[in-house]
Amino acid sequence: MKCKAAVAWEPKKPLEIEEVEVEGPRSGEVLLKVHASGVCHTDAFTLSGDDPEGAFPCILGHEGGCEVVECGPEVKGLKPGDHVIPLYIPECGVCEYCLSTKSNLCQSIASTVWTGYMPDGTRRFSKNGQAIYHYMGCSTFSEYTVVPEIALAKINPTAPLDKVCLLGCGVTTGIGAVLNTAKVHPGATVAIFGLGGIGLSCIQGAVMAQAGRIIAVDINPDKWPIAQALGATDFVNPKGITGSVTDAIKEMTHGGVDYSFECIGNVHVMREALECTHMGWGVSTIIGVAGAGQEISTRPFQLVTGRTWKGTAFGGVKGRTELPGYVDRYLQGDIELDRMVTHTMPLEDINRAFDLMHEGESIRSVIIF
Amino acid sequence: MKCKAAVAWEPKKPLEIEEVEVEGPRSGEVLLKVHASGVCHTDAFTLSGDDPEGAFPCILGHEGGCEVVECGPEVKGLKPGDHVIPLYIPECGVCEYCLSTKSNLCQSIASTVWTGYMPDGTRRFSKNGQAIYHYMGCSTFSEYTVVPEIALAKINPTAPLDKVCLLGCGVTTGIGAVLNTAKVHPGATVAIFGLGGIGLSCIQGAVMAQAGRIIAVDINPDKWPIAQALGATDFVNPKGITGSVTDAIKEMTHGGVDYSFECIGNVHVMREALECTHMGWGVSTIIGVAGAGQEISTRPFQLVTGRTWKGTAFGGVKGRTELPGYVDRYLQGDIELDRMVTHTMPLEDINRAFDLMHEGESIRSVIIF
Repeated sequence: MKCKAAVAWEPKKPLEIEEVEVEGPRSGEVLLKVHASGVCHTDAFTLSGDDPEGAFPCILGHEGGCEVVECGPEVKGLKPGDHVIPLYIPECGVCEYCLSTKSNLCQSIASTVWTGYMPDGTRRFSKNGQAIYHYMGCSTFSEYTVVPEIALAKINPTAPLDKVCLLGCGVTTGIGAVLNTAKVHPGATVAIFGLGGIGLSCIQGAVMAQAGRIIAVDINPDKWPIAQALGATDFVNPKGITGSVTDAIKEMTHGGVDYSFECIGNVHVMREALECTHMGWGVSTIIGVAGAGQEISTRPFQLVTGRTWKGTAFGGVKGRTELPGYVDRYLQGDIELDRMVTHTMPLEDINRAFDLMHEGESIRSVIIF
Repeated sequence: MKCKAAVAWEPKKPLEIEEVEVEGPRSGEVLLKVHASGVCHTDAFTLSGDDPEGAFPCILGHEGGCEVVECGPEVKGLKPGDHVIPLYIPECGVCEYCLSTKSNLCQSIASTVWTGYMPDGTRRFSKNGQAIYHYMGCSTFSEYTVVPEIALAKINPTAPLDKVCLLGCGVTTGIGAVLNTAKVHPGATVAIFGLGGIGLSCIQGAVMAQAGRIIAVDINPDKWPIAQALGATDFVNPKGITGSVTDAIKEMTHGGVDYSFECIGNVHVMREALECTHMGWGVSTIIGVAGAGQEISTRPFQLVTGRTWKGTAFGGVKGRTELPGYVDRYLQGDIELDRMVTHTMPLEDINRAFDLMHEGESIRSVIIF
């Protein structure tokens, strides 16, 4: 079939709206109609050319709210009309990661997902005979896309797809980092570095974990009102203080926070986030994705004196098992998504979504198909 | 009173056996007769001059088996004749660290212990009127020493002091790192880097935790027989393989170990220890003390894909509360100390203990007074 999609022909160039060819689903695969898709920093990161795994031309997008159109052979748990969220980390249910309670990093199709192919090593998108790469196994900047069943979370059909699409990446990552990875305890002090979609979702997670004090850190004071509305109690602007952020936070908290989260992808901030935690029990979690080849560093004394350095991908959430529950918590009012969507637009205007992100104007733009 | 002590007059020089003056205990302090003292790498590290906190002249030694001789005013829980192990990390019982279940890093007297003074800011050792610094609050290379009551673990008086002195540092650190800090689970795979006293004690801890596979890593194959006798199942000599240790261990273990321990103090090995753990759930614990100013580094991707980087001091053990139990476990045969003591000697021969350590000949030398 033919449909409209935003194609990234090469790095650093605007996306182009094209009519592309989408092949039908093969064994274990599902053809989806994309109703809505968030635009995430990770899409921009790949488009920037800094992502060593970025393959072009490709169709970006990985925060989708979708409907099942057609199931290929061997698809057992889905039928046309079901509402689903595509997962860039699948859940096959049988690999050693799926069987472990400690990890969500299902590796069943990792060798193909991250190189832009379907599990069988082929692609479903093309334009005039030229094959187009998939992206993170999702490619939601297209009216239709094809995703393996093991990478689809079936959700409550009453949930608005133009909101719960955000649970496909940023919001779930931020909340999961707090609840699953760091396991913030009630009454804890928390510092969150970077108030984009992930950082704001960390604030939500910290509120859900009943943290006692939530310190939001960002160089853009325009982010503070929404951070405060979501539950942040203190704001630190690194540009507004003399001395280091680490020292400022240690002073505010009598020695450091219990938990910190890096939601930017800046290796220097990752170090600050670790070093502003409390001696003896501080836990710092890296969520942001750093540029290729960049490294974190610190004095080992920071760890020997009781700090823990962790990281998380998709908030440690096993998608097919846990994501439906996140959708239900949104429907119950426990997770805020509506105010995270600051802009909506049709696919034709998708490059504006990237502009708004780079200008710090948006929390999340959602493409409505 | 006067007694014999090994004085470190300056860095990089042999210790000198001197008759020194020991002042009696002040409020909250206890005068101890030292019956035995282990010689640890940390003593050698400070003597090397690389320890930024090293203050000279000083009396080194921090693995003591001691007997109470005299109690100063306000000492409530000890009496002459009691057997004790001095603690370089005290346990006051009332600071925020002592009240936390997550940390053993009591800070009650940290400002004085690590600068070579007693808690009141004065010193008890001198020679011909020249004051001599204390060391780690212990200074056990002396026939008599003075230690605050909050830094003394009262132990079973039937335990041989020339063995259980090792529980004052190395053995407890290694076992505690496995049981308290990493919390190794039954059946786990474990890699231990460096087979000195700490590394061999990690092996003991891993056996106590019922680890399924214990990989010992050292460039000195002479360490292998004792590692094996203590329970190591595999041996890797970094000098005997082509390629990296990280790759070798990942290959041996189908993707990496569940837990690793760095017991050397080498920042490059710390990175290898982290990176040889399994994606998704690997936990690496730093025990070794690195030189001043040295830093650890890695790609944040290592953490984002589910590895955890930790560190530990004294194995996370709260000394006054837990150390008596370690002594009892030795007496019950659950902890091996006897074969860790490869050499004994009188105080006069203490420089030989350092030579044996540097030559890789000894596990632990114990000074018998």
